[in-house]
Amino acid sequence: MKKLLPAIMFSLCLTAFSQSVADYVNPFTGTDHMGHTYPGATVPFGMVQLSPDTDTVPYSTGAGYKKEVYAYCAGYQYSDNTICGFSHTHFSGTGHSDLGDFLLIPTTGPLKLNPGTKDNPDSGYRSRFSHERESASPGYYSVMLDDYGILAELTTTERVGVHRYTSHNQDDINLILDMSAGIYNYPGKNTWQFIRVENDTLVTGYRQTRGWARTRTMYFAMAFSKPLVHYGHENGEEIIYRGFYRKFNEKEDFPEMAGKDITAWFRFRMQAGEQLTVRVALSPVSTAGALNNLQTEAPRPDFDLVRLQAHERWNEELSRIQVEGSLKVKQNFYTSLYHTFLSPTIYMDVDGKYRGLDQNIHQAEGFTNYSTFSLWDTYRALHPLFTLVQQERTSSMIRSMLAHRKQSVHGILPVWSHHANENWCMTGYHAIPVIADAYLKGIGGFDAAEALEAMDASATYAGYDGIGEYMQYGYAPADLTGNSATKTLEYAYDDWCIARTAEKAGQRGLTGIYHRRARSFENIYDRSTGFMRPRLSDGSWQKEFDPLKTEGQGFIEGNAWNYSLYVPHDPAQLIAWAGGSMPFVRHLDSLFTMKLDEKHIEDSEDIDKRGIIGNYVHGNEPSHHVPYLYSFAGAPAKTQERVHQIMDALYQPTPGGLPGNDDCGQMSAWYIFSALGFYPVCPGSNEYVLGSPSVSRAEIRLENGKTFAIQAKGLSEKNIFVKKITLNGKPWSGLFIRHEDIMAGGEMVFEMSSKPAKIKVPESDLPGRSF
Amino acid sequence: MKKLLPAIMFSLCLTAFSQSVADYVNPFTGTDHMGHTYPGATVPFGMVQLSPDTDTVPYSTGAGYKKEVYAYCAGYQYSDNTICGFSHTHFSGTGHSDLGDFLLIPTTGPLKLNPGTKDNPDSGYRSRFSHERESASPGYYSVMLDDYGILAELTTTERVGVHRYTSHNQDDINLILDMSAGIYNYPGKNTWQFIRVENDTLVTGYRQTRGWARTRTMYFAMAFSKPLVHYGHENGEEIIYRGFYRKFNEKEDFPEMAGKDITAWFRFRMQAGEQLTVRVALSPVSTAGALNNLQTEAPRPDFDLVRLQAHERWNEELSRIQVEGSLKVKQNFYTSLYHTFLSPTIYMDVDGKYRGLDQNIHQAEGFTNYSTFSLWDTYRALHPLFTLVQQERTSSMIRSMLAHRKQSVHGILPVWSHHANENWCMTGYHAIPVIADAYLKGIGGFDAAEALEAMDASATYAGYDGIGEYMQYGYAPADLTGNSATKTLEYAYDDWCIARTAEKAGQRGLTGIYHRRARSFENIYDRSTGFMRPRLSDGSWQKEFDPLKTEGQGFIEGNAWNYSLYVPHDPAQLIAWAGGSMPFVRHLDSLFTMKLDEKHIEDSEDIDKRGIIGNYVHGNEPSHHVPYLYSFAGAPAKTQERVHQIMDALYQPTPGGLPGNDDCGQMSAWYIFSALGFYPVCPGSNEYVLGSPSVSRAEIRLENGKTFAIQAKGLSEKNIFVKKITLNGKPWSGLFIRHEDIMAGGEMVFEMSSKPAKIKVPESDLPGRSF
Repeated sequence: MKKLLPAIMFSLCLTAFSQSVADYVNPFTGTDHMGHTYPGATVPFGMVQLSPDTDTVPYSTGAGYKKEVYAYCAGYQYSDNTICGFSHTHFSGTGHSDLGDFLLIPTTGPLKLNPGTKDNPDSGYRSRFSHERESASPGYYSVMLDDYGILAELTTTERVGVHRYTSHNQDDINLILDMSAGIYNYPGKNTWQFIRVENDTLVTGYRQTRGWARTRTMYFAMAFSKPLVHYGHENGEEIIYRGFYRKFNEKEDFPEMAGKDITAWFRFRMQAGEQLTVRVALSPVSTAGALNNLQTEAPRPDFDLVRLQAHERWNEELSRIQVEGSLKVKQNFYTSLYHTFLSPTIYMDVDGKYRGLDQNIHQAEGFTNYSTFSLWDTYRALHPLFTLVQQERTSSMIRSMLAHRKQSVHGILPVWSHHANENWCMTGYHAIPVIADAYLKGIGGFDAAEALEAMDASATYAGYDGIGEYMQYGYAPADLTGNSATKTLEYAYDDWCIARTAEKAGQRGLTGIYHRRARSFENIYDRSTGFMRPRLSDGSWQKEFDPLKTEGQGFIEGNAWNYSLYVPHDPAQLIAWAGGSMPFVRHLDSLFTMKLDEKHIEDSEDIDKRGIIGNYVHGNEPSHHVPYLYSFAGAPAKTQERVHQIMDALYQPTPGGLPGNDDCGQMSAWYIFSALGFYPVCPGSNEYVLGSPSVSRAEIRLENGKTFAIQAKGLSEKNIFVKKITLNGKPWSGLFIRHEDIMAGGEMVFEMSSKPAKIKVPESDLPGRSF
Repeated sequence: MKKLLPAIMFSLCLTAFSQSVADYVNPFTGTDHMGHTYPGATVPFGMVQLSPDTDTVPYSTGAGYKKEVYAYCAGYQYSDNTICGFSHTHFSGTGHSDLGDFLLIPTTGPLKLNPGTKDNPDSGYRSRFSHERESASPGYYSVMLDDYGILAELTTTERVGVHRYTSHNQDDINLILDMSAGIYNYPGKNTWQFIRVENDTLVTGYRQTRGWARTRTMYFAMAFSKPLVHYGHENGEEIIYRGFYRKFNEKEDFPEMAGKDITAWFRFRMQAGEQLTVRVALSPVSTAGALNNLQTEAPRPDFDLVRLQAHERWNEELSRIQVEGSLKVKQNFYTSLYHTFLSPTIYMDVDGKYRGLDQNIHQAEGFTNYSTFSLWDTYRALHPLFTLVQQERTSSMIRSMLAHRKQSVHGILPVWSHHANENWCMTGYHAIPVIADAYLKGIGGFDAAEALEAMDASATYAGYDGIGEYMQYGYAPADLTGNSATKTLEYAYDDWCIARTAEKAGQRGLTGIYHRRARSFENIYDRSTGFMRPRLSDGSWQKEFDPLKTEGQGFIEGNAWNYSLYVPHDPAQLIAWAGGSMPFVRHLDSLFTMKLDEKHIEDSEDIDKRGIIGNYVHGNEPSHHVPYLYSFAGAPAKTQERVHQIMDALYQPTPGGLPGNDDCGQMSAWYIFSALGFYPVCPGSNEYVLGSPSVSRAEIRLENGKTFAIQAKGLSEKNIFVKKITLNGKPWSGLFIRHEDIMAGGEMVFEMSSKPAKIKVPESDLPGRSF
């Protein structure tokens, strides 16, 4: 009996909590302004993200294009009042974008095969809607399509999107399938489209696009809960000669359609109140794969069952961390946790087949293949979060990245892995910190020797993005490569991760090489200005230099002020350069308190004002660790104050409640860590720097069966400072906690206070002193 | 000892013959004018047809386009004096066309990435050449590329094309790979192209086209015998936004290329006299499949070995029929046999994987999958020939057609099966006679019940090409569907084949239904004119009616004169309608002797004058059986005379030696049968109508181990009439021979004479009296 107790207790706890945690999630959070999240239905890390698209802004190269198309990175803008339809793939929070596969919308009345416009919705198939008749919860979304009197509900399994349309009138439904609709949909993006009406309840097909992913194909199998009575399509492109006279009217009831701009329609006779359920399975492999996914995951048109399962999946996943606190905090916390469990996404059929970077079909042996690695964003906090609460998936993600590398014609790890493509977005080789961090934390399930070899290969691929020049000069010269200062800083940190990995693996040669390379940041520190600064190949500094400016200054998504603090593996050096702790703290204070003028705010890429505090840019990622740097200078109270300021000011459980792109969960992962009271300033160090919790209590259910609890005694709006910390009842003087301390289970108690604690932290208890 | 004798004797015979038969083949036959054959290298039924393309005429809809693009159906015109390069797929003898995948040409000097023009070859990569420095034999082709001083030699395995380039100068070779070059290459045909430079001796990739096959992809793996030193590409299309700033110079030495109009180049340092061998494996499945094909079929760059093997394969296959006769006859015979063994083509990887009509990857279990079924042409004589000398392949071809049907969203047998596509070309459902003929002849290896079901499904697919109307009215009404008279006649014959199949399978119901349908030809016989004539749905005849005209008269590729003789399963009815044997013979005489005016000759589709004798059009297929109809009226000498006339006048072992499109071997199969002295007027009847041999002796090596010999005693230019026939020494009074008589082995001796034999043939010995 005794042995069973923990399991029973866990089970009881789960029951107590699990009925509720998903209810704190507001999927609309981030759908207004720049969050770039989607409100639709998905399951944790699911391959299908079934969500409404409120406009189809075609990308163009005309002036002002960017802002408009940019707003629709996830297909949905909260301020819109029409919906074009529901498509099955969406990135969560990305800046640049793609996807939006297989847009479906049920319509009544005259057949309309174009989306129409915002200003004149009646000109196309789109429908007006109102937030009053719209709702969303994890795994479920519903909206009344006012123009058609149809209630649309969405839910999903991992690979199957399920739609349920309830017709309020007795009227034919024309279900529109716009194969050409998509996100970032510039002219010529659609490469090929193919549809087969297999029988009166089953349609299969695929589409190929040349977008952010240049050579991309997605397949589907779509099943109707009742037989269609009639169907057809239009091909919007100029008709191209095929070489035989017409034997069929291919436009109606002809079961094979192919071309570059196809909009199909499927007609159903509906009684008032009757429901049409449409299951759409995706596959990266083939229509046969999609059909198998359909038959395996959603064999029957049982919307309610799928919805229930989706809800349970979310509750289960979100219950990995149990928190207590104010309603707002819980909403923020679980919405953030929800966002962190959206990406990377499963990219594999139920039988383990997936499309590789080489466009061949591969079999995943012993792992789940993932795609959507927005690594420049997510290596910072999202993947470190997974090392705590998604260790099994972390192993699979690393296996996926190693498989990507094997399939890569360049022989390197992913930069931005995107549906069997490399889209090369952003700088650095940040698969490395992700793998290094997991390896150093003892997460297995992959071949460490292969991983180290892959890291070395990636860091020495001279043809890529200035790496050759970086190796030659010790920095990326500004005259030879773009964003040179950012690259130098990021490469240096990534190299430090390789050194740490090589060290643990006992590879002395590589350890030395990469520890040397990890110092490269020193080569672009300009003592005369006190900033990191782009440097030319002749050793001189780039002349034009405005440390407040983002564009054209050798940095990307950040200015010199922010980026100069980006040496995660050696803040001590930054402090030394600043002249010691006190000047460094003052320097940080300036960052948060200075006033950035309008020009420089405008110039900050990809965010709006709401993501900026002073000159501290939280809406982009490079400074996410900065509030925690105070602690390295022995000023933890400043960290505590700043993180609360950021959490309070920049995170709301509302549509406009994100300070910038969620970036596949990085923005939210920052919140999760900060709310729990610690943050991974330097992944690969096994060290989390302590901050100040915003939850009054948290329990992290670890995959090793243990629980690590956090308690913030006396926490209130005013009591945000930490007076005293104990771990398992013993005083804890350190300003950081190690990964192993957490994995051992236990309880860390923060005693909160309204005033900064005046304590002198011993040198040895400062973070970053031990690696 | 005794038991071994036949095997030894066979082996000795094979040795004696096999060193020579391939030498009688002239692959240039049909490359001038309208033959539409290619002179390049292939092996029997091979997936690779590696051949020079002498021009790249883009298809356009402008006036006069057709004739010009039409001339390049197989890529090569003998009258040209430049070569654009060597591509890996070609149809043999088709009218409409496609393919021309992966055009390679080795060049020296300045890099040129467009083909240039006939008039100004120096403006592009093409080279001048001369027939004096060009040669071809089965499985081998060579030409001197005069502009570059490079000798190009080609050979193949079933799935791998092997090039050998011998450089006469010490000069870099720029090997051009034009991914956009192709046959019938109208603007927009290229859908997508993808190339990976895997390492310095291996390149993989694929291209997708939307041509005659609408949704087509072909993959390749290309291996060089020495490392390249440099490579690059141009993309001819407008550059389309991809969403990231340039991290690479993608134009040079960047190992992944993708787009819609890519021309790549690969540079090699060459010594004078040095050879570069390039192996290009194809796959319909994937680049991984292509690589496996490469490693399996041509693991080493040994051109001479592949060439020798190809030659042996051809000798082996061509030795299935051994003939004696004049040099011209032997050349005609083996060239024809060579042409009949080019199509259908293998469409499957070495591991049995192939792409199906549903675009999914399938595994061929127990058969070889074939594509390129030009059935409207080939059901007449090519497939019947295969029932004699390619029985094993016939089983596989039928399995391939049944698989196609299973994958068909229409659920019907192929019309024109074309690389995982149905191109719907021409009329009828002529997979049926092919399957019926084989089944009735006892060829197994497929499921007869499935076959009959497939036939019935195909013949009742109402939505296709007037079938519904044909079933409703008993004929295809001219006001409801095009080429109505042709369809009625062909459907009626195909239906008779189903009836025969159902009869043998013991399916009484179907037998009755289809025997009735087989009489449908009666419904369009117009007694007032004595011709088959288009009929409207109200029962009246189409008013405009010119029995000499081809266009707009309800027929395709033939006029009423020719088509009215197309009732293969009941010539007796035609004779009766004509008023008996004598008037019927006179009617046939008129056909051969009347003078067709220029207007009507021009109007005859797809051929030139050389394919016409009087009003008998041999250059198209519908009349191929007509010379043999004399025998049905008891006038065998007329048949004997006409077939010799046709063989002598219309077949030459020279570039211009074919009377029209070879049509995937049908034109050549007519010759093979006629030269052997018999012809399958009505496949499905198991009966071959006797004619007059043009070979003095032939031995058909049957797959059952037996041999059937034909001897034409006393044959000479003048002695073309048959005086007497014996089979195995016994007099043979019949004007036909049954398939089983041939399969039993033995010897048929024709005693030849310069004068028509004046014999009265008993009614029972006329062909067509027994089915």
